[in-house]
Amino acid sequence: MTSEIRPVFFISDGTGLTAEGLGQALLSQFDTIPFEKTTLPYIDSVEKAKKAVAEINAAGIECGTTPIVFDTIVNQEVRDVFANCDGFLVDIFQTFLKPLERELGKGSSYSVGMSHAVAPDGQYARRIDAINFALDNDDGARIRYYDQADLILVGVSRSGKTPTSLYLAMQYGLNIANYPLTEDDIGDDQLPDSLRKYKTKLFGLTIDPERLQAIREMRRPDSRYASLKQCQYEVNEVEALYRRHAVPFLSTTERSVEEISARILQVTGKRRSVS
Amino acid sequence: MTSEIRPVFFISDGTGLTAEGLGQALLSQFDTIPFEKTTLPYIDSVEKAKKAVAEINAAGIECGTTPIVFDTIVNQEVRDVFANCDGFLVDIFQTFLKPLERELGKGSSYSVGMSHAVAPDGQYARRIDAINFALDNDDGARIRYYDQADLILVGVSRSGKTPTSLYLAMQYGLNIANYPLTEDDIGDDQLPDSLRKYKTKLFGLTIDPERLQAIREMRRPDSRYASLKQCQYEVNEVEALYRRHAVPFLSTTERSVEEISARILQVTGKRRSVS
Repeated sequence: MTSEIRPVFFISDGTGLTAEGLGQALLSQFDTIPFEKTTLPYIDSVEKAKKAVAEINAAGIECGTTPIVFDTIVNQEVRDVFANCDGFLVDIFQTFLKPLERELGKGSSYSVGMSHAVAPDGQYARRIDAINFALDNDDGARIRYYDQADLILVGVSRSGKTPTSLYLAMQYGLNIANYPLTEDDIGDDQLPDSLRKYKTKLFGLTIDPERLQAIREMRRPDSRYASLKQCQYEVNEVEALYRRHAVPFLSTTERSVEEISARILQVTGKRRSVS
Repeated sequence: MTSEIRPVFFISDGTGLTAEGLGQALLSQFDTIPFEKTTLPYIDSVEKAKKAVAEINAAGIECGTTPIVFDTIVNQEVRDVFANCDGFLVDIFQTFLKPLERELGKGSSYSVGMSHAVAPDGQYARRIDAINFALDNDDGARIRYYDQADLILVGVSRSGKTPTSLYLAMQYGLNIANYPLTEDDIGDDQLPDSLRKYKTKLFGLTIDPERLQAIREMRRPDSRYASLKQCQYEVNEVEALYRRHAVPFLSTTERSVEEISARILQVTGKRRSVS
């Protein structure tokens, strides 16, 4: 017998990212249930709320089950509309706001959709600058700005350097360069000249050779580059290089970009400048 | 009288992103209080929990106030350590897990740190492919893959196309190309040849000319490119082009990448494929 499909809604007066983030984390604890997920962002008026409630109720009737509704709406009037929907409400803000108000001894501003608005302190410009830095210093394209880098990611081709650089830039506003360790760089147990000066900024990525082969095979089928033998050789050599020069490193195999990034920050002690 | 600094901790057995996301959203409601934020990820043992508690208690003594602690730890033994800390605990998972278990008629798996692990259904590969697509089709560099694009962002230079493309790829796994509308493309009220065929995929970005001038000025000081007159001309022309050809568009001024992306998905009806 298979489980019935359970509709899930993430409702927000802003982007919906907070409701999605918490909701996904909670639902991942129930991995045998097939969820049908829908995000409804920018529900910032009674009229929009009524339309959303109609959609929730219709989904419940169609599936024959109670929809789960994660909401982060702050405005009381809009929230009231959802109180009467046929869903099971997981009321994220309201649950925690009142106790926080008591603890902090202040009323909250109850302003709508503030959390992903542009921060007033230049955090936004910082992130955009960091994304541009990551793009300009991707894949060893340029090395003359390494003195401005917070970290330089190193690793063999297709080990996950670019997505990780971009994620660290976007999420944390850090300047991340990345440099590919190619056959020219390995084999003599020395760090490439351009990296030696910045040894304390280096962080190594590695990857399971079988996984690397699969990824490279998609890119260049039947090439020497994608052969298991070549992948094993490169991975063995860079791991030996990391160990010899005490470059901290981790494996990207079976890890999401979020997880790789969080672990890099933890290991290097880089401050997370979330806004 | 200025407010006293209030220490805040985001504690997680995983990346900490969920605790940060919800915590930030809640704290943004108290914008007069200066918070000192610290994230402690991967707290997945009693020993690590005890060290975290010592750090929380020390911060409380130093600031002379009760630290606020947002936690998403699932393991009961690890959670028990935090029950005795001197902080004000905002216990995100526990608050919602029990009611959800009742509603769903199942126990949760209580597995540690599942939410940002690699999804088993190829979502991770999808996101990496989407990031590569965004990079390969950035800034009009290539146009021959536009048939594979979910959306093509258009706009004047420095209106926010690249960060938005990358964010949509990373967060939602969508294939986003982007094409810069330069002086060559505007003035005759026609869409560039390479875009005409893909009219239904176009989404326009625009920006306040004064803001654009400031951004361009940082890139190329005292240039014609960065002059207010040039910025006004380009912005006026592309907005006229959008209206003439019914290309949906929005302003990136004063909006975060998250907000721009969420609104684009809302307007275009693109499915958010969060995992």
